Amino acid sequence: MITVTKEVLMDYGTKVFEAVGVSHDEAEWVTDCLVRSNLKGVDSHGVQHVPRYAGDVRNGKTTPGAQIKMLKESSSISIVDGHEGFGYSIARQAMELTMKKAKQTGVAFTGIQRLGHIGRVGRWVEMAIENDMIGIASQPGGIYVTPWGGIDRKLPINPVGVAIPTGSGSPFIIDFSLGPVAGGRLSILKTRGQQVPPGWLIDDEGNPTQDPEYGSTKGAQLPLGQAGLGYKGYALSMVLSVLTGALIGAYEQDAHRPSGVFLGALDIGSFLPIEEFKRNMDDMVADIKSSRLGKGFDSILIPGEPEYIEEQKRLKTGIPLDDEIWENLMNEAKNVGLDPSSFPVKSGGEVNHPSYTLKQQY
Amino acid sequence: MITVTKEVLMDYGTKVFEAVGVSHDEAEWVTDCLVRSNLKGVDSHGVQHVPRYAGDVRNGKTTPGAQIKMLKESSSISIVDGHEGFGYSIARQAMELTMKKAKQTGVAFTGIQRLGHIGRVGRWVEMAIENDMIGIASQPGGIYVTPWGGIDRKLPINPVGVAIPTGSGSPFIIDFSLGPVAGGRLSILKTRGQQVPPGWLIDDEGNPTQDPEYGSTKGAQLPLGQAGLGYKGYALSMVLSVLTGALIGAYEQDAHRPSGVFLGALDIGSFLPIEEFKRNMDDMVADIKSSRLGKGFDSILIPGEPEYIEEQKRLKTGIPLDDEIWENLMNEAKNVGLDPSSFPVKSGGEVNHPSYTLKQQY
Repeated sequence: MITVTKEVLMDYGTKVFEAVGVSHDEAEWVTDCLVRSNLKGVDSHGVQHVPRYAGDVRNGKTTPGAQIKMLKESSSISIVDGHEGFGYSIARQAMELTMKKAKQTGVAFTGIQRLGHIGRVGRWVEMAIENDMIGIASQPGGIYVTPWGGIDRKLPINPVGVAIPTGSGSPFIIDFSLGPVAGGRLSILKTRGQQVPPGWLIDDEGNPTQDPEYGSTKGAQLPLGQAGLGYKGYALSMVLSVLTGALIGAYEQDAHRPSGVFLGALDIGSFLPIEEFKRNMDDMVADIKSSRLGKGFDSILIPGEPEYIEEQKRLKTGIPLDDEIWENLMNEAKNVGLDPSSFPVKSGGEVNHPSYTLKQQY
Repeated sequence: MITVTKEVLMDYGTKVFEAVGVSHDEAEWVTDCLVRSNLKGVDSHGVQHVPRYAGDVRNGKTTPGAQIKMLKESSSISIVDGHEGFGYSIARQAMELTMKKAKQTGVAFTGIQRLGHIGRVGRWVEMAIENDMIGIASQPGGIYVTPWGGIDRKLPINPVGVAIPTGSGSPFIIDFSLGPVAGGRLSILKTRGQQVPPGWLIDDEGNPTQDPEYGSTKGAQLPLGQAGLGYKGYALSMVLSVLTGALIGAYEQDAHRPSGVFLGALDIGSFLPIEEFKRNMDDMVADIKSSRLGKGFDSILIPGEPEYIEEQKRLKTGIPLDDEIWENLMNEAKNVGLDPSSFPVKSGGEVNHPSYTLKQQY
């Protein structure tokens, strides 16, 4: 384990991307998105992706500097083509467009077709709260989830982000898959030798299993909901699938699946004064936190708060990374002609993944 | 048990409301909303409410003929005052306004403050599909649900409706509470002496229970999600609470709770040609239905399809009602000077509540 500062990682990523021909601004933006994931403890979406992304630019799979192209629009709606650009740059342009329209009309939605990896969906909704708006973002992800009453994988895992400004403390940020468990978390549980709780997974014949071997390449995941309530998660999954597919002209008929990115922004000032909104948010959050605690819990947090706490910590103490990941990053540095010794790190560190901790309420 | 036709119920409700001073058009609309719930097998929101609504008009609690008043608007947003009118009439006017704006800009949202009972939230989103739009509707409902990690009731049950047009067969209609179980269903389980599945309810001290005595007046409900996943249902519940509260100026500071109605419409034609959309919806639905079946299931249905099937049946065979409900309705008829013999019924009948049947996937 090593520990590295945010500044060193920013310097590293920016220089690697520049070395393969990405402009300084775009290199910095993509790196910033990755480093921010590390800061929040969402390491699955962090700097470990730099070498792969640089490779994608080198082999022509990703086009740096790509601009969104408008395919269809009305005053609150845009459908854009991402031209296989950096997902991070395309999603940023699309979210800026969405917020510009929301400022005019009160709410706007944008559908993006054809673009690269957009990373953590939470990033795009964070752009909304920076502008006193409510943000929503979703993409399909892998097909892992069964319909209610079925046992075959038919529905995507549906990563979804929703961000809502608050007056103080942590902002409200949803950044999870609607389906039970994203691939990254499943791998971690497998590595740790942990079983998953009951009701998440089934094997190839539809029998319940708690073995994290199942759920991605084998077997399937059941839709969100307690025993008898999976029809609710199934229904919500279909809605997100429509928003990221059929509605925005990004439905793959051959694979029967959605393939686009859906972004939205609601301008809070169009509804009511932002101060009144934030005051009421803070009151609601304080009331929720005043609940007595359940067994095994030492606090009640709002969505996004575990990552907010981790971010405050890592800004002070640095970002811990596995030795193998750092070695990969330094190999890529050498690969593009950079000197590894210009990226100083400390030995040691401790990883805490707030969002990968298993807690159970019943 | 008696069985009565849709036509007789329409005639009954319309005449009772007219007798207490409601205009013919409004009387017919409110009755139509109630009868449609009975047709779909959602009897908890059906004609049994006619005597109470008529009483509310009589004692001045409900103002017939009330019109929405615009409090704040932009081209895609409206905040309106419902003036304590019939919830059914106010929500209809507000949804018509929402769809008119969505036709112009592509999407529109409306928040309603101060209005009576709006019944089944599914009704308002059905208005959207009648106009080739996607509809969304939500209201808070009672405070029944705990936050993730807590054991006190802090969040509303969040009835939510989403409707999406399809090309053939049943339309897609979500019409449920995001929280585990609405009060009406809990009462039915109690009457039948059925236990609820594990993970839905806790007692006053936060211990898991399967006794339907808990969950409404006693104890609490856990947020949507399998063991370890309730943080997802908790997060989504907070989003719906913001949309029906803080965002639309309908947050009660004293009770720390939302109190408004949130409506939305997305005009599909603003995104892509409606025929292309419906073709892709039908393909997605067919693919989902092609999954192998889980144990205990004999079909895979889309949200709204159980009610669609029940409606086709009841349109032919009539609507079954409990004797006590019919007696109440006829007492109200006499009360307002109508002749019960002018509302003919058949003896016998069989009730099937598709949405009240307990099925479990694991």
